[in-house]
Formats: sequence, structure tokens, C-alpha cells
Amino acid sequence: MKAIVKIMLRPAVLDPQGKAIAHALSALGFSGVGEVRQGKLITLELDETDAEKARETVKEMCEKLLANTVIEDYEIELEA
Amino acid sequence: MKAIVKIMLRPAVLDPQGKAIAHALSALGFSGVGEVRQGKLITLELDETDAEKARETVKEMCEKLLANTVIEDYEIELEA
Repeated sequence: MKAIVKIMLRPAVLDPQGKAIAHALSALGFSGVGEVRQGKLITLELDETDAEKARETVKEMCEKLLANTVIEDYEIELEA
Repeated sequence: MKAIVKIMLRPAVLDPQGKAIAHALSALGFSGVGEVRQGKLITLELDETDAEKARETVKEMCEKLLANTVIEDYEIELEA
């Protein structure tokens, strides 16, 4: 089973990387670009075949290691 | 319109960040974890309302700035 974890800074947290991208896009001539935010995408191959258990495990991984839950939100997607 | 860009290293490219995460997970006692890969997730708010034009613009952004297409693959999702 494959898990895809999306980690983004919480909406209230300033995102300087996103701001830098927005600035660079505007310097390259792209107009009509509003807010840009950058996050992380982590894919994990898991031996676990039970979706519920896999989600539980990945949630624990997020809480303990992958995400900084003070400033980041995470979202877990599972693929068979 | 909101664009979500997923950027991952190409499968053939070594991913030391992913390796480090896999190692840390194992050190934390998580077992049954195979390959781990880390990529970027970029969300952009666009003024453009036409999905086809938006996709074309974001593709150009990826080719010119967001992704290094020599070593990275990108995927574009659009949300109304």
C-alpha cells in the first residue's frame, strides 16, 4: 500500500518560500498570480495492506516525525 | 482558480531526503516501511477562470521556474 502525505504550513503561518515563488513568477512576466504556498509531499511504500491500520500508522508518523503540527497541517491519502 | 502542483524527483534519481526519512522512521520503531520519497507541493491562486488556459500557464511556470525537469517530474491539478 502506498501512502501520500501532503504537508502545508497552516494558513495563518507566513510562508516566505511561497512569497519568493510568487515574486519570481511576477519577475518572469506571469501576471494574475495571487497567493502561492509551498509545502511538502511525502510518499511512503508500506507493507501494511489494511487501509485503516495504514492510515493510523501514517498519522502517527506525521505526529511524531513528518509534520510540525504547531505550524503545519497534514493530509493523508492511501493508494492500494 | 486554484492550481496544485506536485513535484517529485524522477524515479531514477536518488532521493537522500526520502532515505533520511525512512531511516528516521525505522529509528522511531516504525517497521514495514519501504521506499520513501519527498517532493514539493505548490499551491497557486490564479485570476484565470478558464481551466485550459490555467493549465497551460501553470505548465509554463513549471517548465520555467517551479520544476527542474532534468531530474523532476511534475503534475498539475486544478480546483475551481
